[in-house]
Formats: sequence, structure tokens, C-alpha cells
Amino acid sequence: MKFFLGLAMFVEGKLHRTIEASNDFTRVTIIDQTALPFKFNLVDLKSLEDVVEAIKLMKVRGAPLIGVTSAFGIALAMNDDPSDKSLMEAAFFLKESRPTAVNLAWAVNKILEHLKVYDNNQRAKAAWLYANQLAEDDIKTNMNIGRAGLPLLKKIKSSPVNILTHCNAGWLATIDHGTALSPIYQAVEDGIDIHVWVDETRPRNQGMNLTAWELSQAKIPHTIISDNTGGLLMQQNKVDCVIVGADRISMDGQVCNKIGTYLKALAAKAHNIPFYVAAPLSTIDKNFMGEHQLFEIECRDPDELLKIKGLNSDGIISEVKIGLSNAYNPAFDVTPPEYISKIICEKGSYNPGSIGTLLL
Amino acid sequence: MKFFLGLAMFVEGKLHRTIEASNDFTRVTIIDQTALPFKFNLVDLKSLEDVVEAIKLMKVRGAPLIGVTSAFGIALAMNDDPSDKSLMEAAFFLKESRPTAVNLAWAVNKILEHLKVYDNNQRAKAAWLYANQLAEDDIKTNMNIGRAGLPLLKKIKSSPVNILTHCNAGWLATIDHGTALSPIYQAVEDGIDIHVWVDETRPRNQGMNLTAWELSQAKIPHTIISDNTGGLLMQQNKVDCVIVGADRISMDGQVCNKIGTYLKALAAKAHNIPFYVAAPLSTIDKNFMGEHQLFEIECRDPDELLKIKGLNSDGIISEVKIGLSNAYNPAFDVTPPEYISKIICEKGSYNPGSIGTLLL
Repeated sequence: MKFFLGLAMFVEGKLHRTIEASNDFTRVTIIDQTALPFKFNLVDLKSLEDVVEAIKLMKVRGAPLIGVTSAFGIALAMNDDPSDKSLMEAAFFLKESRPTAVNLAWAVNKILEHLKVYDNNQRAKAAWLYANQLAEDDIKTNMNIGRAGLPLLKKIKSSPVNILTHCNAGWLATIDHGTALSPIYQAVEDGIDIHVWVDETRPRNQGMNLTAWELSQAKIPHTIISDNTGGLLMQQNKVDCVIVGADRISMDGQVCNKIGTYLKALAAKAHNIPFYVAAPLSTIDKNFMGEHQLFEIECRDPDELLKIKGLNSDGIISEVKIGLSNAYNPAFDVTPPEYISKIICEKGSYNPGSIGTLLL
Repeated sequence: MKFFLGLAMFVEGKLHRTIEASNDFTRVTIIDQTALPFKFNLVDLKSLEDVVEAIKLMKVRGAPLIGVTSAFGIALAMNDDPSDKSLMEAAFFLKESRPTAVNLAWAVNKILEHLKVYDNNQRAKAAWLYANQLAEDDIKTNMNIGRAGLPLLKKIKSSPVNILTHCNAGWLATIDHGTALSPIYQAVEDGIDIHVWVDETRPRNQGMNLTAWELSQAKIPHTIISDNTGGLLMQQNKVDCVIVGADRISMDGQVCNKIGTYLKALAAKAHNIPFYVAAPLSTIDKNFMGEHQLFEIECRDPDELLKIKGLNSDGIISEVKIGLSNAYNPAFDVTPPEYISKIICEKGSYNPGSIGTLLL
């Protein structure tokens, strides 16, 4: 069964990317990821403001995807006003929208650098072409991440291979294929029997909402578990490896990723289970090395923990308040390199301590 | 401020226990814990069937409380039919209702042993008196657990003392005072400045629903966090110790407790943070020693993970479906003794490896 074409993912029988520019370069179409798994809604973004809002509200999320989306945000801003001032302002608002994912700043800086040599009247077109190129590059990068990760899965001899993942670092977090899920898609295409343990990933439930949905679309066997369950599964020898994505990686291999990643890394280490991080090299932050305190950990609205959306008894998406006390909602934690078996990137799989040398 | 009287907890200005027998020995009144924190509902249980249902549906939960509740279940069964057959059947159904918490079997066995010397016409009254005695004993035990744990909190010099707890091992999990929360209540009474990090505790959210509610009633500062957050807080030196309860403890100090406990124990160990388990000696299972596989880990309905209750926009308790894929829902995990600093029981605080000697 070839459900994976190396081009785009099938949803309801049609091929889709997570973001696509219109042919006339006036808008981009995204999947509203806050409505998944309940509804598959395509939404048009027509201005910089639309893009900033979509990133802040996490209609698009995932480090690689918000990087490319922010490049399209610049392109939309250039449609309205291609001046230097407009370009700088657009870059500022986009970088502010999610502070932790370094790919966002990386993509914005790339497109800024690219555009500054263009005259104002050429900037909009140049921006669209460049944003499209970043999208294409992301797809190739993720294919290569999948190729680099595949041998790590192939050497596991159990059947099925039980893989635990946290949050969503799949197709939905990128333009296509995903990072952590890319080796899984390639392994399934290669005929390897895979089963994925999907961490719910509180508080925003990206595992339950997005990873489970994405794996369902791809018909890959998977089971949702609470974030509390991974330790028991490892005790019971029900996890062969862990693969997660990353939002920022220091030069010496400290991995900032969705809150809760660190707890799974600790457990994997205690049980001698390989713990893999899959991410493009653009996730590496050249400015950081050593102390994890240097990462800015984004704290989000406590209501993300205290309210939740689901289908009510009438099948309508409805929000309920589940907690009545104060809450604290940091979005990421940092896993030190000693807990990471390999970082899988587009160039291969590397010991975390040496990942920074790829950028030198 | 003396909000803690050593007798019962205040709710809405009135003193309450989690379970109380009527003076005429015809019913027991419980708090329906599945409605908390949204509604404080008192419910009468009038038959063995009512009790079994309340335990299965977790209207009452917490190892010590379901132990005492099951004793009242025997008493109610004796009201209807005091025969040996009725007694044996009641014991069977109660033990089946929640397989992991050893206190349930412990309490049922205690009352069985006690009742067998009574003639049928004396059994009902003897059962009520004995169940009441178990409730009184639980209160004293928990006071003593608090006293035993207090010195461990007193030696922490930071202010406030930041304590992380998982699930609910408070007043609501016992007849009064709680196990893990008992030292906290005593520390606050002693004037120690305490702040509690309350793990949400998916999938049933006993932390968010019960511990946060209970601490709110007692006016103890606390903050709800997702189960994923404890590792980051420990990295940031925001946790001074962890205290949890237990559902079953092996003779050599392996602690079976709410799923996710093990992940916090691993993190505490990695950060040299004391990890305390507070439980009565009745939680120790004399039949178990060594291999954690010997514990039966109760697996509960996947819908506990895939559906959730909260207040809708009209303020009405309403259930929504939050997950659409398969789920797996084991309720407990096992923390090995090497991750536990002390087990706090009514006799004092002990190294986990030596806890079984208290029963010899």
C-alpha cells in the first residue's frame, strides 16, 4: 500500500500540504489545526495580521511549519507595502508571535536577507518565490530526515516496532512528511510493522488531536495514551524507541521541545531505550551552547490547561472549563544531550554533542 | 489561622468527613467525588450494590477511603442478609470492584475476620460498629502520617516550600486529613509557608479536580500544572520535594501508585529532590516482594482518556469527546524503592527497603 507519495498527504482522498500559496500570490491556504481532529477546515490567510494571528492561536504550529508560514507572512506584507519599514515591522511582529521555535526567526532572517537586495517593486514577487522555495526545501529536508532515521528503526527486531512519540512532529508540523514521523512513514512504506504510542500531550493535546489524526489518515496503527503512561510501558518492555521533534537545539545538543519531552527522555535512559530527536538543521540555534537557562521558555495562557474543546452530545465542537484553580503553563522543557541517543537531521544521525559541528 | 481542626475538613463553612454512617445504621453518606470541583454533592448509599457502584464509578476513590467504604458495604449487606453466604458474596463483589488498591481487600478481610464470631442476629450491628472503628482508625493513622512527615518538610529551608504532588492523596482519598497531604496540612498549621504544585493527573484529573479543590477549601496556595511540567520545574529548582500516596506497597518498598508517579520519581532522582510516599501500613501487601510484574495493574475504560467533563458556557456540567482514536488506560505504575527517599507511615518515616519489616 503506497499511501505515502513523497509529495503530500492524503486527507479525505485528496492530496494536501499544510500550507499552500495561491497561484496569484494573494493568499495562502492553511489547515486550521485547532479544529482537528473534529473538522478538516481550510482557511485563507490574506494579510500579515492573519498570519500572526494564525501562528499565535496555533492554527498553524510545529517549528518547521511556523517558519515557512512566517515567510509567507512577509510575502503578504510585501503585497501591501514593500518598503524597508514594512519589511522590518513584519519581521518584528512575526518573531514576536512565538518566541521559542528558532525556525521561525531562522526563516524570517533568511527571507529578510534575501529581499534586501531587491527594489521595492520587485520585492513582493521575490518574497513569494522565496517563501515557496522554503516550503519546497522543507519537504526535501523532511524526506532526508526520514531517510536518515530509517536505519535506526530497521535495526529494531521486534514486530511490531513500538515507537513512542510526544506532541506532533509529523506532517502537520511541517509542510509535508514531518520530522519525528518522517522515518515512521518511510519505515511503513518499507514494509516494517509499526505501532505508535501517541502521548496525549497536555495541555494542548497535539498528540491526541494531531498525531493520532495524522496517523489515522495514513492508516498506521497507533494508540493514544496519557502523558503519564510512557514510564509504565517502558517498564513493561512495550516501547522500542522514542522519537520526538524539537523547537530549538543548542550547539552542544540540548533539545528544547514540547513540555514533557524531558520526562520521557529520563524514562528512556532508565530503561536503555533509544531516545531520538528528529529536526532540521535550521532548528539549531548558533547563539546557544551549554546552560539551558539561556533558552526562553514560552509560557502560555493558563486557560489552555483549564479549558478544553471537544464534541458535545450533539456532535458540535464545544469548550468546557475543566479546572477552577490557578494554573501555570510553560510550553517547553529542555532535554540535556546525555539523555539523547541521536539527533536525526537531513544530513544523517549524529551524537547530540557533535550536532553543532555541522553548522561550523 | 486554624483551618485544620484535626477532626474534619470545612466545606462551605461546615465540617465534613468523606464518608459518614447515619445514626440509625441504615445508610452512609458520601461526597460524589466525580462531581468535584464543580458541585459539592452528598449522596446516600443504602445497599451493597450502591457501594460497589460508587467504588467502580470512583464516586469514592483513594486507597484508604475505598477500604473504609467497602467495610460500610459489608455493613449494609448485613442489614439485608446477615448469613455467611451473604457475607462471602459481599466480600467477593467488593474486592472485585477495584483490584489494585490493597487497602480495599485489607479492610474487607479485617471486617470478615471480625464478623465471623458473631451470630447472624448480631452481625449487622457489629459490622456498623467495626466499619465506624475503621473510619476512626483511618483518621488517627493519617494524623500520625502527618506527624511523621512534618519533620521532613521542616528541614527544607526555602520559603515557600514548594511541594509537588500527583493525583489526590488528601482528605478526599481518606476519611480525613489524607496521606500525602497530611504532612502539608500539619506544616501549614505549624506556620510553614507552603506552595503545592498540583499535577493535573490525567486521565481522571484527580489533581485538578480534587487536590486543587481540597487545597482551595483549606486556603493553601497551590498551582495546577500539566503532568508534563514537573521535569521543567525541577530543572528550574522550583520543587523542594515530591509527596505522593500509594495504592499498594510491596514488602521491599516497590510503590504502586497512580499512573505517572514513576516519571516524577525518575525526575526527582535526576535532580536530587526528595521523593516521599505517604501511606498507612495497610497499603503494604505481604504477598508481594520483588518483581513489579506481580502487581495487577488495573486497566480502565479508554473513554476515561477520550471523554472529559467540565462546565459548558451555560455553567452546566457537560461531557465532551476529546479523542477519536483508540486509547490505552492503565491506572497505575510501579516506582522501585531506589527512587523513593522515604516511605512515611503512621509509625514514622522509613527507607523503602525496610518498610516490610514493620509488618514482621
